Amino acid sequence: MSVTAKNFYRRSLPSTCVDFSSEEGKRLFKESLLEGNANIYFKLAAQFRTQDEPAYCGLSTLGNDGIERLGGGSRSNLEGTVEILSRNNARLLCSIRTREKVVFFRTGINLPQFTCLASCNRLNADVRYGKEGEDFLRMLREDVIASVRNDAEVIVASYDRSQLEQTGTGHFSPLAAFHSGTDKVLIMDVARFKYPPHWVTLTQLQQAMCSLDPSTKKTRGYVKLSLRKDSCPLVAFAIKANLGCNDADVSCLSIISVEHISCTSGTLRKEMRLRFYI
Amino acid sequence: MSVTAKNFYRRSLPSTCVDFSSEEGKRLFKESLLEGNANIYFKLAAQFRTQDEPAYCGLSTLGNDGIERLGGGSRSNLEGTVEILSRNNARLLCSIRTREKVVFFRTGINLPQFTCLASCNRLNADVRYGKEGEDFLRMLREDVIASVRNDAEVIVASYDRSQLEQTGTGHFSPLAAFHSGTDKVLIMDVARFKYPPHWVTLTQLQQAMCSLDPSTKKTRGYVKLSLRKDSCPLVAFAIKANLGCNDADVSCLSIISVEHISCTSGTLRKEMRLRFYI
Repeated sequence: MSVTAKNFYRRSLPSTCVDFSSEEGKRLFKESLLEGNANIYFKLAAQFRTQDEPAYCGLSTLGNDGIERLGGGSRSNLEGTVEILSRNNARLLCSIRTREKVVFFRTGINLPQFTCLASCNRLNADVRYGKEGEDFLRMLREDVIASVRNDAEVIVASYDRSQLEQTGTGHFSPLAAFHSGTDKVLIMDVARFKYPPHWVTLTQLQQAMCSLDPSTKKTRGYVKLSLRKDSCPLVAFAIKANLGCNDADVSCLSIISVEHISCTSGTLRKEMRLRFYI
Repeated sequence: MSVTAKNFYRRSLPSTCVDFSSEEGKRLFKESLLEGNANIYFKLAAQFRTQDEPAYCGLSTLGNDGIERLGGGSRSNLEGTVEILSRNNARLLCSIRTREKVVFFRTGINLPQFTCLASCNRLNADVRYGKEGEDFLRMLREDVIASVRNDAEVIVASYDRSQLEQTGTGHFSPLAAFHSGTDKVLIMDVARFKYPPHWVTLTQLQQAMCSLDPSTKKTRGYVKLSLRKDSCPLVAFAIKANLGCNDADVSCLSIISVEHISCTSGTLRKEMRLRFYI
Protein backbone atom coordinates (compact mmCIF):
# COMPACT_ATOMS: atom_id res chain seq x y z
CA MET A 1 0.00 0.00 0.00
CA SER A 2 3.03 2.22 0.40
CA VAL A 3 3.67 4.76 -2.32
CA THR A 4 7.06 6.16 -3.22
CA ALA A 5 7.30 9.13 -5.48
CA LYS A 6 10.29 8.10 -7.56
CA ASN A 7 9.36 7.82 -11.18
CA PHE A 8 5.82 7.04 -12.15
CA TYR A 9 5.23 9.15 -15.24
CA ARG A 10 4.57 7.03 -18.32
CA ARG A 11 6.36 3.86 -17.32
CA SER A 12 6.87 1.30 -20.05
CA LEU A 13 4.53 -1.65 -19.60
CA PRO A 14 6.31 -4.94 -18.84
CA SER A 15 6.02 -7.75 -21.37
CA THR A 16 3.43 -9.46 -19.14
CA CYS A 17 0.93 -6.71 -20.00
CA VAL A 18 -0.56 -5.84 -23.39
CA ASP A 19 -1.09 -2.11 -24.01
CA PHE A 20 -4.72 -1.29 -24.88
CA SER A 21 -3.62 0.87 -27.80
CA SER A 22 -1.04 -1.56 -29.25
CA GLU A 23 -1.96 -3.65 -32.31
CA GLU A 24 -2.33 -6.72 -30.09
CA GLY A 25 -4.40 -4.73 -27.57
CA LYS A 26 -6.72 -3.49 -30.30
CA ARG A 27 -7.18 -7.03 -31.61
CA LEU A 28 -8.04 -8.34 -28.13
CA PHE A 29 -10.52 -5.53 -27.62
CA LYS A 30 -12.18 -6.01 -30.99
CA GLU A 31 -12.59 -9.75 -30.41
CA SER A 32 -13.86 -9.32 -26.85
CA LEU A 33 -16.36 -6.75 -28.11
CA LEU A 34 -17.63 -9.19 -30.74
CA GLU A 35 -17.95 -11.90 -28.06
CA GLY A 36 -20.11 -9.53 -25.99
CA ASN A 37 -17.45 -9.44 -23.28
CA ALA A 38 -16.78 -5.70 -23.29
CA ASN A 39 -20.23 -4.36 -22.50
CA ILE A 40 -19.28 -2.71 -19.20
CA TYR A 41 -16.33 -1.05 -20.95
CA PHE A 42 -18.52 1.66 -22.47
CA LYS A 43 -19.91 2.81 -19.15
CA LEU A 44 -16.46 2.77 -17.57
CA ALA A 45 -14.72 4.46 -20.50
CA ALA A 46 -17.30 7.22 -20.79
CA GLN A 47 -16.08 8.61 -17.50
CA PHE A 48 -12.68 7.08 -17.06
CA ARG A 49 -10.60 9.45 -14.96
CA THR A 50 -7.11 9.31 -13.59
CA GLN A 51 -6.33 9.39 -9.91
CA ASP A 52 -5.44 12.82 -8.54
CA GLU A 53 -2.54 11.72 -6.36
CA PRO A 54 -0.26 8.65 -6.25
CA ALA A 55 -1.90 7.37 -3.06
CA TYR A 56 -5.48 7.76 -4.35
CA CYS A 57 -5.89 4.61 -6.46
CA GLY A 58 -8.55 3.17 -4.16
CA LEU A 59 -10.37 6.44 -3.62
CA SER A 60 -10.28 7.27 -7.30
CA THR A 61 -11.48 3.82 -8.33
CA LEU A 62 -14.31 4.02 -5.85
CA GLY A 63 -15.27 7.64 -6.42
CA ASN A 64 -15.38 7.40 -10.17
CA ASP A 65 -16.00 3.76 -10.99
CA GLY A 66 -18.34 2.98 -8.20
CA ILE A 67 -20.60 5.86 -7.50
CA GLU A 68 -20.58 7.80 -10.74
CA ARG A 69 -20.38 4.97 -13.22
CA LEU A 70 -23.08 2.88 -11.61
CA GLY A 71 -25.44 5.82 -11.83
CA GLY A 72 -25.28 7.13 -8.28
CA GLY A 73 -24.67 10.64 -9.50
CA SER A 74 -26.67 10.62 -12.68
CA ARG A 75 -29.76 12.57 -11.66
CA SER A 76 -30.14 15.52 -13.94
CA ASN A 77 -30.75 17.95 -11.08
CA LEU A 78 -27.26 17.49 -9.72
CA GLU A 79 -25.39 20.75 -9.95
CA GLY A 80 -21.85 22.00 -10.23
CA THR A 81 -21.40 21.79 -6.51
CA VAL A 82 -21.70 18.02 -6.62
CA GLU A 83 -19.06 17.93 -9.29
CA ILE A 84 -16.73 19.70 -6.88
CA LEU A 85 -17.57 17.14 -4.22
CA SER A 86 -17.16 14.12 -6.44
CA ARG A 87 -14.11 15.42 -8.27
CA ASN A 88 -12.26 15.74 -5.03
CA ASN A 89 -11.65 12.12 -4.08
CA ALA A 90 -10.68 13.18 -0.59
CA ARG A 91 -14.25 14.15 0.19
CA LEU A 92 -15.95 10.79 -0.17
CA LEU A 93 -18.53 10.53 2.54
CA CYS A 94 -17.80 8.01 5.23
CA SER A 95 -18.04 7.63 8.94
CA ILE A 96 -14.47 6.37 9.23
CA ARG A 97 -12.67 8.27 12.00
CA THR A 98 -10.91 11.48 11.02
CA ARG A 99 -7.47 10.23 12.02
CA GLU A 100 -7.84 7.22 9.72
CA LYS A 101 -8.93 9.49 6.90
CA VAL A 102 -5.79 11.58 7.23
CA VAL A 103 -3.70 8.42 7.06
CA PHE A 104 -5.30 6.97 3.98
CA PHE A 105 -5.30 10.20 2.05
CA ARG A 106 -1.52 10.09 2.43
CA THR A 107 -0.80 6.40 2.02
CA GLY A 108 -3.79 4.96 0.18
CA ILE A 109 -6.46 2.57 1.44
CA ASN A 110 -6.59 -1.17 1.89
CA LEU A 111 -9.29 -3.63 0.86
CA PRO A 112 -11.42 -3.48 4.05
CA GLN A 113 -11.29 0.34 3.98
CA PHE A 114 -12.27 0.32 0.30
CA THR A 115 -15.24 -1.94 1.08
CA CYS A 116 -16.23 0.23 4.01
CA LEU A 117 -16.13 3.40 1.89
CA ALA A 118 -18.15 1.69 -0.83
CA SER A 119 -20.82 0.60 1.65
CA CYS A 120 -21.03 4.12 3.05
CA ASN A 121 -21.52 5.50 -0.43
CA ARG A 122 -24.61 3.67 -1.64
CA LEU A 123 -22.88 0.63 -3.09
CA ASN A 124 -23.20 -3.07 -2.41
CA ALA A 125 -19.63 -4.27 -2.02
CA ASP A 126 -19.12 -8.00 -2.20
CA VAL A 127 -15.48 -8.74 -1.39
CA ARG A 128 -13.43 -11.84 -2.30
CA TYR A 129 -9.97 -12.28 -0.80
CA GLY A 130 -7.39 -13.75 -3.18
CA LYS A 131 -6.63 -17.48 -2.96
CA GLU A 132 -4.36 -19.87 -4.83
CA GLY A 133 -5.86 -22.70 -6.86
CA GLU A 134 -8.35 -23.54 -9.56
CA ASP A 135 -11.50 -22.88 -7.50
CA PHE A 136 -10.69 -19.22 -6.96
CA LEU A 137 -9.59 -18.82 -10.59
CA ARG A 138 -12.88 -20.30 -11.80
CA MET A 139 -14.92 -18.06 -9.49
CA LEU A 140 -12.94 -15.00 -10.60
CA ARG A 141 -13.51 -15.88 -14.28
CA GLU A 142 -17.24 -16.38 -13.74
CA ASP A 143 -17.56 -13.10 -11.84
CA VAL A 144 -15.56 -11.20 -14.47
CA ILE A 145 -17.65 -12.60 -17.32
CA ALA A 146 -20.91 -11.80 -15.50
CA SER A 147 -19.72 -8.23 -14.90
CA VAL A 148 -18.35 -7.40 -18.36
CA ARG A 149 -21.47 -8.72 -20.10
CA ASN A 150 -23.90 -6.53 -18.15
CA ASP A 151 -23.75 -2.90 -17.09
CA ALA A 152 -24.97 -2.92 -13.50
CA GLU A 153 -21.97 -4.45 -11.72
CA VAL A 154 -18.33 -3.44 -11.78
CA ILE A 155 -15.45 -5.61 -10.59
CA VAL A 156 -12.61 -3.76 -8.92
CA ALA A 157 -9.35 -5.65 -8.55
CA SER A 158 -7.16 -5.08 -5.51
CA TYR A 159 -3.73 -6.37 -6.46
CA ASP A 160 0.01 -6.14 -6.08
CA ARG A 161 1.56 -4.42 -9.09
CA SER A 162 4.94 -6.07 -8.53
CA GLN A 163 3.39 -9.48 -9.29
CA LEU A 164 2.58 -8.15 -12.77
CA GLU A 165 6.20 -6.96 -13.08
CA GLN A 166 5.02 -3.37 -12.82
CA THR A 167 6.63 -0.85 -10.47
CA GLY A 168 4.78 -0.17 -7.23
CA THR A 169 2.86 -2.44 -4.89
CA GLY A 170 -0.81 -2.31 -3.81
CA HIS A 171 -3.23 -0.91 -6.35
CA PHE A 172 -6.95 -0.77 -7.19
CA SER A 173 -8.46 -0.59 -10.68
CA PRO A 174 -11.68 -1.70 -12.39
CA LEU A 175 -11.89 -4.50 -14.98
CA ALA A 176 -13.54 -3.55 -18.26
CA ALA A 177 -13.43 -6.49 -20.70
CA PHE A 178 -12.60 -10.19 -21.02
CA HIS A 179 -11.01 -12.06 -23.94
CA SER A 180 -11.92 -15.73 -23.79
CA GLY A 181 -9.35 -17.01 -26.31
CA THR A 182 -6.41 -15.82 -24.20
CA ASP A 183 -8.19 -15.74 -20.79
CA LYS A 184 -7.18 -12.08 -20.44
CA VAL A 185 -8.89 -9.16 -18.72
CA LEU A 186 -8.59 -5.47 -19.49
CA ILE A 187 -7.45 -3.46 -16.46
CA MET A 188 -8.48 0.20 -16.66
CA ASP A 189 -5.51 1.43 -14.64
CA VAL A 190 -6.66 4.54 -12.78
CA ALA A 191 -3.05 5.78 -12.63
CA ARG A 192 -3.13 6.70 -16.30
CA PHE A 193 -0.15 9.00 -15.94
CA LYS A 194 1.84 5.85 -15.16
CA TYR A 195 0.37 3.01 -17.24
CA PRO A 196 -2.27 2.96 -20.00
CA PRO A 197 -5.17 0.46 -19.81
CA HIS A 198 -3.72 -3.02 -20.38
CA TRP A 199 -4.56 -6.70 -20.75
CA VAL A 200 -3.25 -9.39 -18.37
CA THR A 201 -4.13 -13.07 -18.00
CA LEU A 202 -6.51 -14.05 -15.21
CA THR A 203 -3.79 -16.32 -13.81
CA GLN A 204 -1.41 -13.37 -13.49
CA LEU A 205 -4.13 -11.29 -11.88
CA GLN A 206 -4.99 -14.09 -9.46
CA GLN A 207 -1.34 -14.27 -8.44
CA ALA A 208 -1.28 -10.49 -7.90
CA MET A 209 -4.45 -10.78 -5.78
CA CYS A 210 -2.80 -13.44 -3.59
CA SER A 211 -0.04 -11.11 -2.44
CA LEU A 212 -0.21 -10.28 1.29
CA ASP A 213 -1.06 -6.69 2.25
CA PRO A 214 1.15 -5.84 5.27
CA SER A 215 -1.48 -3.43 6.63
CA THR A 216 -4.18 -6.14 6.90
CA LYS A 217 -2.06 -9.32 7.04
CA LYS A 218 -4.53 -10.69 4.50
CA THR A 219 -4.36 -11.26 0.77
CA ARG A 220 -5.72 -8.70 -1.65
CA GLY A 221 -8.58 -9.76 -3.95
CA TYR A 222 -11.52 -8.17 -5.70
CA VAL A 223 -14.82 -6.44 -4.97
CA LYS A 224 -18.09 -6.69 -6.88
CA LEU A 225 -19.75 -3.28 -6.78
CA SER A 226 -23.39 -2.58 -7.57
CA LEU A 227 -25.67 0.30 -6.67
CA ARG A 228 -27.92 -0.09 -3.59
CA LYS A 229 -31.51 0.00 -4.71
CA ASP A 230 -32.87 1.42 -1.46
CA SER A 231 -30.94 4.68 -1.25
CA CYS A 232 -30.98 8.09 -2.90
CA PRO A 233 -28.15 9.87 -4.66
CA LEU A 234 -26.40 12.88 -3.27
CA VAL A 235 -28.60 15.79 -4.24
CA ALA A 236 -27.55 19.39 -4.42
CA PHE A 237 -29.33 22.52 -5.51
CA ALA A 238 -26.93 25.34 -6.24
CA ILE A 239 -28.34 28.73 -7.08
CA LYS A 240 -24.86 29.70 -8.24
CA ALA A 241 -21.94 27.32 -8.30
CA ASN A 242 -18.59 28.86 -7.47
CA LEU A 243 -16.39 27.18 -10.05
CA GLY A 244 -13.72 29.72 -10.83
CA CYS A 245 -15.08 30.74 -14.22
CA ASN A 246 -16.52 34.08 -15.19
CA ASP A 247 -19.29 33.89 -12.60
CA ALA A 248 -16.83 33.10 -9.85
CA ASP A 249 -16.87 36.40 -8.05
CA VAL A 250 -20.57 36.66 -7.39
CA SER A 251 -22.20 35.44 -4.23
CA CYS A 252 -23.56 31.96 -4.42
CA LEU A 253 -25.79 29.79 -2.32
CA SER A 254 -25.97 26.03 -2.34
CA ILE A 255 -28.19 23.62 -0.48
CA ILE A 256 -26.83 20.10 -0.31
CA SER A 257 -28.80 17.09 0.76
CA VAL A 258 -26.56 14.19 1.71
CA GLU A 259 -27.49 10.60 2.42
CA HIS A 260 -25.03 7.97 3.51
CA ILE A 261 -24.89 4.79 5.50
CA SER A 262 -22.89 4.49 8.69
CA CYS A 263 -20.43 1.65 8.21
CA THR A 264 -20.22 1.03 11.95
CA SER A 265 -23.88 1.10 12.97
CA GLY A 266 -25.45 0.37 9.57
CA THR A 267 -27.88 3.24 10.08
CA LEU A 268 -28.87 5.67 7.38
CA ARG A 269 -27.77 9.23 8.02
CA LYS A 270 -29.24 12.25 6.30
CA GLU A 271 -27.87 15.76 6.36
CA MET A 272 -28.95 19.04 4.92
CA ARG A 273 -26.19 21.59 4.44
CA LEU A 274 -26.53 25.24 3.58
CA ARG A 275 -23.59 27.08 2.11
CA PHE A 276 -23.28 30.74 1.30
CA TYR A 277 -20.30 32.16 -0.54
CA ILE A 278 -19.37 35.82 -0.97
CA MET B 1 -16.75 31.27 -25.77
CA SER B 2 -18.53 32.61 -22.71
CA VAL B 3 -19.16 30.16 -19.90
CA THR B 4 -22.00 30.42 -17.42
CA ALA B 5 -21.96 28.21 -14.39
CA LYS B 6 -25.64 27.34 -14.19
CA ASN B 7 -26.10 23.63 -14.47
CA PHE B 8 -23.58 21.53 -16.28
CA TYR B 9 -23.36 18.34 -14.26
CA ARG B 10 -24.54 15.29 -16.21
CA ARG B 11 -26.87 16.98 -18.67
CA SER B 12 -29.08 14.69 -20.71
CA LEU B 13 -27.87 14.45 -24.29
CA PRO B 14 -30.29 15.92 -26.85
CA SER B 15 -31.83 13.55 -29.40
CA THR B 16 -29.38 14.85 -32.03
CA CYS B 17 -26.54 13.07 -30.20
CA VAL B 18 -26.07 9.34 -29.61
CA ASP B 19 -24.55 8.42 -26.25
CA PHE B 20 -21.36 6.33 -26.62
CA SER B 21 -22.58 3.86 -23.98
CA SER B 22 -26.15 3.49 -25.30
CA GLU B 23 -27.07 0.40 -27.32
CA GLU B 24 -27.04 2.48 -30.52
CA GLY B 25 -23.72 4.06 -29.54
CA LYS B 26 -22.15 0.65 -28.93
CA ARG B 27 -23.39 -0.58 -32.30
CA LEU B 28 -21.92 2.45 -34.10
CA PHE B 29 -18.61 1.97 -32.32
CA LYS B 30 -18.44 -1.75 -33.07
CA GLU B 31 -19.16 -1.17 -36.76
CA SER B 32 -16.71 1.72 -37.05
CA LEU B 33 -14.05 -0.42 -35.38
CA LEU B 34 -14.65 -3.22 -37.88
CA GLU B 35 -14.39 -0.70 -40.74
CA GLY B 36 -11.00 0.41 -39.40
CA ASN B 37 -12.39 3.86 -38.64
CA ALA B 38 -11.72 3.91 -34.90
CA ASN B 39 -7.97 3.43 -34.85
CA ILE B 40 -7.14 6.79 -33.25
CA TYR B 41 -9.76 6.07 -30.56
CA PHE B 42 -7.41 3.78 -28.64
CA LYS B 43 -4.70 6.39 -28.27
CA LEU B 44 -7.22 9.04 -27.27
CA ALA B 45 -9.16 6.80 -24.88
CA ALA B 46 -6.05 5.53 -23.13
CA GLN B 47 -5.54 8.99 -21.67
CA PHE B 48 -8.91 10.63 -22.00
CA ARG B 49 -9.24 13.22 -19.24
CA THR B 50 -11.91 15.69 -18.32
CA GLN B 51 -11.34 19.42 -18.28
CA ASP B 52 -10.51 20.87 -14.86
CA GLU B 53 -12.72 23.95 -15.10
CA PRO B 54 -15.72 24.95 -17.24
CA ALA B 55 -13.65 27.44 -19.24
CA TYR B 56 -10.80 25.00 -19.96
CA CYS B 57 -12.20 23.00 -22.89
CA GLY B 58 -9.58 24.32 -25.31
CA LEU B 59 -6.69 24.08 -22.89
CA SER B 60 -7.71 20.62 -21.79
CA THR B 61 -8.16 19.37 -25.35
CA LEU B 62 -4.79 20.74 -26.29
CA GLY B 63 -2.90 19.73 -23.17
CA ASN B 64 -4.12 16.17 -23.13
CA ASP B 65 -5.10 15.35 -26.69
CA GLY B 66 -2.39 17.21 -28.42
CA ILE B 67 0.81 16.98 -26.54
CA GLU B 68 0.38 13.86 -24.45
CA ARG B 69 -1.58 11.70 -26.85
CA LEU B 70 0.62 12.41 -29.82
CA GLY B 71 3.61 11.28 -27.83
CA GLY B 72 5.12 14.61 -26.84
CA GLY B 73 5.35 13.53 -23.24
CA SER B 74 6.05 9.87 -23.71
CA ARG B 75 9.77 9.72 -22.99
CA SER B 76 10.38 7.33 -20.18
CA ASN B 77 12.68 9.71 -18.34
CA LEU B 78 9.90 12.19 -17.71
CA GLU B 79 9.29 12.46 -14.01
CA GLY B 80 6.51 13.31 -11.62
CA THR B 81 7.27 16.98 -11.93
CA VAL B 82 6.21 16.95 -15.56
CA GLU B 83 2.97 15.34 -14.55
CA ILE B 84 2.32 18.33 -12.31
CA LEU B 85 3.07 20.65 -15.20
CA SER B 86 0.95 18.82 -17.73
CA ARG B 87 -1.89 18.07 -15.33
CA ASN B 88 -2.34 21.73 -14.68
CA ASN B 89 -3.80 22.98 -17.95
CA ALA B 90 -3.13 26.54 -16.92
CA ARG B 91 0.60 26.03 -17.26
CA LEU B 92 0.86 25.26 -20.95
CA LEU B 93 3.93 26.96 -22.26
CA CYS B 94 3.31 29.83 -24.60
CA SER B 95 4.62 33.27 -25.34
CA ILE B 96 1.12 34.78 -25.35
CA ARG B 97 1.11 37.92 -23.22
CA THR B 98 0.33 37.49 -19.53
CA ARG B 99 -2.79 39.64 -19.63
CA GLU B 100 -4.26 37.47 -22.39
CA LYS B 101 -3.45 34.35 -20.39
CA VAL B 102 -5.39 35.63 -17.40
CA VAL B 103 -8.37 36.31 -19.65
CA PHE B 104 -8.46 32.92 -21.29
CA PHE B 105 -8.01 30.98 -18.09
CA ARG B 106 -11.25 32.63 -16.97
CA THR B 107 -13.27 32.63 -20.18
CA GLY B 108 -11.73 29.95 -22.39
CA ILE B 109 -9.76 30.32 -25.62
CA ASN B 110 -10.77 30.86 -29.21
CA LEU B 111 -9.57 29.07 -32.34
CA PRO B 112 -6.58 31.35 -33.15
CA GLN B 113 -5.42 31.16 -29.51
CA PHE B 114 -5.79 27.38 -29.58
CA THR B 115 -3.69 27.19 -32.75
CA CYS B 116 -1.09 29.52 -31.27
CA LEU B 117 -0.82 27.44 -28.10
CA ALA B 118 -0.53 24.26 -30.15
CA SER B 119 2.28 25.73 -32.27
CA CYS B 120 4.12 26.83 -29.14
CA ASN B 121 3.86 23.33 -27.73
CA ARG B 122 5.58 21.22 -30.38
CA LEU B 123 2.53 20.57 -32.56
CA ASN B 124 1.79 21.26 -36.19
CA ALA B 125 -1.63 22.89 -36.15
CA ASP B 126 -3.41 23.04 -39.49
CA VAL B 127 -6.59 25.08 -39.03
CA ARG B 128 -9.76 25.05 -41.20
CA TYR B 129 -12.44 27.65 -40.57
CA GLY B 130 -16.01 26.36 -40.92
CA LYS B 131 -17.87 26.97 -44.18
CA GLU B 132 -21.30 26.09 -45.52
CA GLY B 133 -21.62 23.79 -48.52
CA GLU B 134 -20.61 20.45 -49.92
CA ASP B 135 -16.94 21.28 -50.52
CA PHE B 136 -16.22 21.91 -46.84
CA LEU B 137 -18.25 18.85 -45.82
CA ARG B 138 -16.28 16.66 -48.22
CA MET B 139 -12.95 18.05 -46.97
CA LEU B 140 -14.02 17.54 -43.35
CA ARG B 141 -15.05 13.94 -44.07
CA GLU B 142 -11.75 13.19 -45.84
CA ASP B 143 -9.73 14.72 -43.00
CA VAL B 144 -11.72 12.86 -40.35
CA ILE B 145 -11.30 9.52 -42.13
CA ALA B 146 -7.56 10.09 -42.61
CA SER B 147 -7.19 10.92 -38.91
CA VAL B 148 -9.27 8.10 -37.41
CA ARG B 149 -7.56 5.45 -39.55
CA ASN B 150 -4.02 6.36 -38.45
CA ASP B 151 -2.56 7.25 -35.08
CA ALA B 152 -0.31 10.22 -35.78
CA GLU B 153 -2.86 12.97 -36.36
CA VAL B 154 -5.75 14.12 -34.18
CA ILE B 155 -8.62 16.30 -35.37
CA VAL B 156 -9.94 18.76 -32.81
CA ALA B 157 -13.33 20.29 -33.53
CA SER B 158 -14.05 23.87 -32.50
CA TYR B 159 -17.83 24.20 -32.49
CA ASP B 160 -20.91 25.82 -31.05
CA ARG B 161 -22.69 23.44 -28.69
CA SER B 162 -26.04 25.19 -29.16
CA GLN B 163 -26.08 24.09 -32.83
CA LEU B 164 -26.08 20.49 -31.58
CA GLU B 165 -28.96 21.39 -29.23
CA GLN B 166 -26.61 21.07 -26.27
CA THR B 167 -26.40 23.71 -23.55
CA GLY B 168 -23.46 26.12 -23.78
CA THR B 169 -21.76 27.75 -26.74
CA GLY B 170 -18.13 27.52 -27.91
CA HIS B 171 -16.36 24.24 -27.21
CA PHE B 172 -13.33 22.19 -28.25
CA SER B 173 -13.10 18.39 -28.31
CA PRO B 174 -11.21 15.72 -30.30
CA LEU B 175 -12.84 13.34 -32.80
CA ALA B 176 -12.16 9.65 -32.20
CA ALA B 177 -14.07 7.52 -34.74
CA PHE B 178 -16.16 7.66 -37.91
CA HIS B 179 -19.17 5.53 -38.91
CA SER B 180 -19.57 5.53 -42.67
CA GLY B 181 -23.10 4.09 -42.81
CA THR B 182 -24.58 7.02 -40.89
CA ASP B 183 -21.85 9.61 -41.67
CA LYS B 184 -21.38 10.13 -37.92
CA VAL B 185 -18.30 11.04 -35.88
CA LEU B 186 -17.57 10.25 -32.25
CA ILE B 187 -16.89 13.41 -30.22
CA MET B 188 -14.81 12.73 -27.11
CA ASP B 189 -16.33 15.57 -25.13
CA VAL B 190 -13.64 16.80 -22.72
CA ALA B 191 -16.35 18.11 -20.37
CA ARG B 192 -17.19 14.60 -19.25
CA PHE B 193 -18.92 15.85 -16.13
CA LYS B 194 -21.47 17.39 -18.48
CA TYR B 195 -21.83 15.06 -21.48
CA PRO B 196 -20.45 11.57 -22.18
CA PRO B 197 -18.68 10.87 -25.52
CA HIS B 198 -21.33 10.97 -28.25
CA TRP B 199 -21.96 10.50 -31.97
CA VAL B 200 -23.24 13.30 -34.25
CA THR B 201 -23.59 13.50 -38.03
CA LEU B 202 -20.90 15.35 -39.96
CA THR B 203 -23.59 17.70 -41.30
CA GLN B 204 -24.58 18.68 -37.76
CA LEU B 205 -20.95 19.17 -36.83
CA GLN B 206 -20.33 21.27 -39.94
CA GLN B 207 -23.26 23.49 -38.96
CA ALA B 208 -21.85 23.85 -35.44
CA MET B 209 -18.46 24.78 -36.94
CA CYS B 210 -20.07 27.50 -39.05
CA SER B 211 -21.33 29.44 -36.03
CA LEU B 212 -19.66 32.84 -35.60
CA ASP B 213 -17.38 33.32 -32.60
CA PRO B 214 -18.03 36.87 -31.29
CA SER B 215 -14.45 37.15 -30.02
CA THR B 216 -12.90 36.60 -33.48
CA LYS B 217 -15.79 37.59 -35.78
CA LYS B 218 -14.94 34.41 -37.69
CA THR B 219 -16.52 30.99 -37.87
CA ARG B 220 -15.26 28.15 -35.72
CA GLY B 221 -13.87 25.05 -37.50
CA TYR B 222 -11.32 22.35 -36.84
CA VAL B 223 -7.59 21.83 -36.37
CA LYS B 224 -5.43 18.94 -37.55
CA LEU B 225 -2.77 18.32 -34.90
CA SER B 226 0.40 16.32 -35.38
CA LEU B 227 3.68 16.27 -33.50
CA ARG B 228 6.56 18.41 -34.85
CA LYS B 229 9.38 16.14 -35.87
CA ASP B 230 12.13 18.69 -35.25
CA SER B 231 11.60 19.41 -31.56
CA CYS B 232 12.27 17.73 -28.23
CA PRO B 233 9.80 16.96 -25.47
CA LEU B 234 9.76 18.73 -22.17
CA VAL B 235 12.37 16.96 -20.11
CA ALA B 236 12.59 16.97 -16.36
CA PHE B 237 14.82 15.21 -13.91
CA ALA B 238 13.41 15.18 -10.41
CA ILE B 239 15.51 13.76 -7.62
CA LYS B 240 12.36 13.78 -5.51
CA ALA B 241 8.98 14.86 -6.80
CA ASN B 242 6.80 16.67 -4.30
CA LEU B 243 3.44 15.09 -5.00
CA GLY B 244 1.65 15.12 -1.68
CA CYS B 245 2.08 11.44 -0.94
CA ASN B 246 4.09 9.89 1.84
CA ASP B 247 7.35 11.38 0.60
CA ALA B 248 5.85 14.83 0.46
CA ASP B 249 7.59 16.38 3.41
CA VAL B 250 11.16 15.70 2.39
CA SER B 251 13.25 18.18 0.49
CA CYS B 252 13.26 17.72 -3.22
CA LEU B 253 15.18 19.05 -6.14
CA SER B 254 14.09 19.15 -9.73
CA ILE B 255 15.83 20.27 -12.87
CA ILE B 256 13.52 21.06 -15.73
CA SER B 257 14.60 21.55 -19.30
CA VAL B 258 11.96 23.32 -21.34
CA GLU B 259 11.80 23.83 -25.09
CA HIS B 260 9.10 25.79 -26.82
CA ILE B 261 8.58 27.84 -29.93
CA SER B 262 7.74 31.52 -29.80
CA CYS B 263 4.47 32.00 -31.67
CA THR B 264 5.30 35.62 -32.46
CA SER B 265 8.91 35.36 -33.64
CA GLY B 266 8.94 31.67 -34.58
CA THR B 267 12.21 31.23 -32.69
CA LEU B 268 13.02 28.26 -30.52
CA ARG B 269 13.44 29.08 -26.86
CA LYS B 270 15.18 26.83 -24.37
CA GLU B 271 15.17 27.18 -20.62
CA MET B 272 16.74 25.32 -17.78
CA ARG B 273 15.01 25.67 -14.43
CA LEU B 274 16.25 24.57 -11.06
CA ARG B 275 13.78 24.08 -8.24
CA PHE B 276 14.46 23.25 -4.64
CA TYR B 277 11.70 22.45 -2.20
CA ILE B 278 11.93 22.15 1.59
